Amino acid sequence: MPATDATNGIAPEPGTVYLVGSGPGDPDLLTVKATRLLEAADVVLHDKLPGPKIIERLPEARREDVGKRAGGERTPQSEINERLVELAREGKSVVRLKGGDSFVFGRGGEEAEYLAAHDIPFEVVPAVTSAIAAPAVAGIPVTHRDHASSVSFVTGHEDPTKDESSVDWDALAATGGTIVVLMGVGRLPDYTTALLEAGMAPETPVALIERGTWPGQQVATGTLETIVDVRDAEDISPPAVTVIGDVAGTRESVVEFLRNDYGDTREES
Amino acid sequence: MPATDATNGIAPEPGTVYLVGSGPGDPDLLTVKATRLLEAADVVLHDKLPGPKIIERLPEARREDVGKRAGGERTPQSEINERLVELAREGKSVVRLKGGDSFVFGRGGEEAEYLAAHDIPFEVVPAVTSAIAAPAVAGIPVTHRDHASSVSFVTGHEDPTKDESSVDWDALAATGGTIVVLMGVGRLPDYTTALLEAGMAPETPVALIERGTWPGQQVATGTLETIVDVRDAEDISPPAVTVIGDVAGTRESVVEFLRNDYGDTREES
Ligand SMILES: C[S@@+](CC[C@H](N)C(=O)[O-])C[C@H]1O[C@@H](n2cnc3c(N)ncnc32)[C@H](O)[C@@H]1O
Ligand SMILES: C[S@@+](CC[C@H](N)C(=O)[O-])C[C@H]1O[C@@H](n2cnc3c(N)ncnc32)[C@H](O)[C@@H]1O
Repeated sequence: MPATDATNGIAPEPGTVYLVGSGPGDPDLLTVKATRLLEAADVVLHDKLPGPKIIERLPEARREDVGKRAGGERTPQSEINERLVELAREGKSVVRLKGGDSFVFGRGGEEAEYLAAHDIPFEVVPAVTSAIAAPAVAGIPVTHRDHASSVSFVTGHEDPTKDESSVDWDALAATGGTIVVLMGVGRLPDYTTALLEAGMAPETPVALIERGTWPGQQVATGTLETIVDVRDAEDISPPAVTVIGDVAGTRESVVEFLRNDYGDTREES
Repeated sequence: MPATDATNGIAPEPGTVYLVGSGPGDPDLLTVKATRLLEAADVVLHDKLPGPKIIERLPEARREDVGKRAGGERTPQSEINERLVELAREGKSVVRLKGGDSFVFGRGGEEAEYLAAHDIPFEVVPAVTSAIAAPAVAGIPVTHRDHASSVSFVTGHEDPTKDESSVDWDALAATGGTIVVLMGVGRLPDYTTALLEAGMAPETPVALIERGTWPGQQVATGTLETIVDVRDAEDISPPAVTVIGDVAGTRESVVEFLRNDYGDTREES
């Protein structure tokens, strides 16, 4: 197998930005390349979404938390973009680390455009997205030959700056495929109602996976009709993904033999 | 950062099957966990999709190619399922290695169900899917705040055993989000026509990424109207993903500064 330590890899380039996804949170689900870049880059800009296990291993001296500003509010994207350019112009090798994959609701596209517009070379390091991995470790395949010939990832629009009407739930229901909602804990009542109104069966299986692959992973299952109550009873909070479709029912038939072990350790974490 | 060598990891369990994704093909995009399991498992069952770079590193003595049978035709899934159970019952630690992520058009769901039905413990090791990574290394984010608040992965149905009518192209067009088609080189004319008939603009950007992250990576771009000709002119063949939507246009504005280097080396590979 390939060399997996930094010494055998190609060193990060000075003046270059690496748009790196961390995967869902388990450090073992980092890619070999991400691991090497985190070890070797001059500076790592990150927020909280990569999760405690990955963040606690980043050396203090080489990391900058750009998730929140001093006052507690979110750092504007424009400020992060400018910081990336500034560091690269100083000749640093810079990792921009995002939870999951940078190009799945991760603003990696905007960062890439900004960097290119400012003549900064960059490299994209794709990663394991939580949209696939969080369901997977709970025993849920997002596609299935018998149940789902498509899967759609969609934002649940917890982000208040985004235009609310841009997700077409009728169309998503009509695809007949699996729907995975990110940032969708708060507005679960809104979009489950929209999907029921669009004609999806009330008994459609739904699963919520909170902090997939983190120490505090939590999985809760129900149906389009019951899942809001389940969410409240089980106290599911962000970050979590919602999986809607027959595939969510797979968990029940496999969980007894599923050996992925992250879950139900909320108390210990 | 976490230990990345097999010696520090937990050894694979005897009698257990690991459903492992390889990522799109670049060995550096294997996860740390996949790397460790490939080094330490008693046997690895694989086909060709993980790509030459990853397959050539698997030790001959511990690997079984289950992609094709002696006669050249495809190994039936039932035979692979049975082989997994057989090896696990012999007490082996078994890796079932799939290209990309096992749960994205990878039949991992069926394998999980079969294993559970036969009392075989298994673990899922999520991976980087080509549906996200192949576009990403070509400079294309599958979602974008300004252009796409959803992304759908869909099969182009090159698999003749699958019911043709199960993908609803009208509904996919109506989502307004990005569409990524897997197994969709051959039927590109069919579904581009379907999407045009569903009302998508003829000038919608489309990109084809063949062998993403493999040595022979090839990227071709056009529009819904031109892409079939582009495919033919550039001789794009499987495996490739088709990205349909405004995000495909991002490549043009960033490619000059994009440092991912896999492409246009078909001659050398
Ligand atoms: C801004 S989006 C970023 C998604 C990320 N780029 C990815 O590919 O996973 C944040 C959302 O991702 C989802 N998410 C991220 N990490 C997660 C995890 N470990 N478990 C469950 N959901 C997660 C949640 O829906 C969360 O609200
Ligand atoms: C049976 S599907 C398996 C998908 C895989 N499980 C994944 O997550 O990437 C096979 C299809 O995946 C796509 N594919 C797999 N690897 C690819 C690569 N390196 N570049 C482009 N497309 C790829 C192609 O569309 C191919 O026809």
